[in-house]
Amino acid sequence: MQIVTALEELREVRLRLPGLVGFVPTMGYLHAGHMSLVKQAKVESASVVASIFVNPSQFGPQEDFAAYPRDLERDLNLLEAAGCDLVWTPTPEIMYPSGHQTWITVEEITKPLEGAMRPGHFRGVATVVAMLFNAVQPQRAYFGQKDAQQLAVIRRMTRDLNFSIKIIGCPTMRESDGLAMSSRNTYLNPAERQAANVLYLALSIAKVAFENGQREAEKLHQTMSEVLVKEPLARVQYISCADPDSLQELHGRVERALLSMAVYIGKTRLIDNIILFQEGNYASHD
Amino acid sequence: MQIVTALEELREVRLRLPGLVGFVPTMGYLHAGHMSLVKQAKVESASVVASIFVNPSQFGPQEDFAAYPRDLERDLNLLEAAGCDLVWTPTPEIMYPSGHQTWITVEEITKPLEGAMRPGHFRGVATVVAMLFNAVQPQRAYFGQKDAQQLAVIRRMTRDLNFSIKIIGCPTMRESDGLAMSSRNTYLNPAERQAANVLYLALSIAKVAFENGQREAEKLHQTMSEVLVKEPLARVQYISCADPDSLQELHGRVERALLSMAVYIGKTRLIDNIILFQEGNYASHD
Repeated sequence: MQIVTALEELREVRLRLPGLVGFVPTMGYLHAGHMSLVKQAKVESASVVASIFVNPSQFGPQEDFAAYPRDLERDLNLLEAAGCDLVWTPTPEIMYPSGHQTWITVEEITKPLEGAMRPGHFRGVATVVAMLFNAVQPQRAYFGQKDAQQLAVIRRMTRDLNFSIKIIGCPTMRESDGLAMSSRNTYLNPAERQAANVLYLALSIAKVAFENGQREAEKLHQTMSEVLVKEPLARVQYISCADPDSLQELHGRVERALLSMAVYIGKTRLIDNIILFQEGNYASHD
Repeated sequence: MQIVTALEELREVRLRLPGLVGFVPTMGYLHAGHMSLVKQAKVESASVVASIFVNPSQFGPQEDFAAYPRDLERDLNLLEAAGCDLVWTPTPEIMYPSGHQTWITVEEITKPLEGAMRPGHFRGVATVVAMLFNAVQPQRAYFGQKDAQQLAVIRRMTRDLNFSIKIIGCPTMRESDGLAMSSRNTYLNPAERQAANVLYLALSIAKVAFENGQREAEKLHQTMSEVLVKEPLARVQYISCADPDSLQELHGRVERALLSMAVYIGKTRLIDNIILFQEGNYASHD
């Protein structure tokens, strides 16, 4: 496995990679969710490239950029063991040198949900992903369904800017109690960690209601709310029942829906989501 | 020479082009300026791709999108004769299908000059050029120095977003009286056409002053202004003496400068520019 930092070095090594390239962009501190992306890339591509870059431009001024967990040595060992061919570890100075002034905005789809709570977040995400795509020039790129709006934004940007890259969304990986894997789970103390499974519990109970015939967006919303309110360590930031493509909030009868939420467990902000669909009514993006 | 319209068809044909690809993006109605770009691309690349697309998103609501001259048949004949290998002629519906919502902004460098007079213009330019770059995937792309700020914006975007593309600026082509070639010259009636050489006259007289030792930005500005005011058909929109890289207006003593202007001749808005530099003090971008 080759490890490069400079952009010029990345370009040189990239040119020598054989066949189709699958790309897994990450912010490091890898967990089984990331590794499932690498595994799928490995199955589908001749060469696998990963990047590790904690992107400052997608963090708000009050957010956890400085505190975000980092462990490069462990990450590199995991990637090597998974058969990754090339890892790019650029620095903020490489990605945003003095004079950098170009930004990518995706409009409507970034307005609700995470975009509403984290102003500028998706501008940072879209810009860095385009910079990574242009540098790595993959044929396929892998993202987790856990960040559902991020995945939708990247699909939209990829289509709108004519990138010749297939975007592949992969299922959320979960701990044994259902908690979605996230590098930020490391912020939780033991009591919070136990409380944190309430997000998936709320989503799962709403899913059962849907499967038992509950089709009213407002009722599904209420079901999630009732579960979350019972957990004293949880403070809901938003709960949503939205169209999975446009991310617009749904009202009345729903056939397909993205249920999603952002919930503070203590000081740690967690997000999770699931997609509901009637049998035979799920149109995949791929 | 192959001619394609659909994006999928472009991608297929592009993959079969041999060697390094030089790309000349145009809005059509080609003149000797465009053809000089094609010629340089032909010398430097194994394959030459041109695009013809009058990009609606770079025109303001009061500007000349509908009136912009078009003659596809003539353009294709010129490109074929010049040895172009592939021409892409996308439609607005291909480039901006329903739901398109991704935009690229380049910040500081787009604020003065054309950017100040044409709000949103460079957002449209940066976005369409990125879309063309991603679709065509060239190794080199050619732009005229006539649109000096556009060239600076594209260089900046290319660097900031990590495009692996070399941007090549080519000298402004001029008519025998010095008028910079432009598809918009076709708007001029005979009297206006005669008056239109006042832009280059003003630039040339300021250049002579500079070469004779005049180094004060304000004096160079005044020299251009005095020439332009004598032409009754000319109405100055702006005159500028700016840093060639940052495009910030210069004051006091200058060593290198971009002299530029936008001037209405009747109802037709024309732009022109030259770069002044002391011998041995010109750092090229290439």
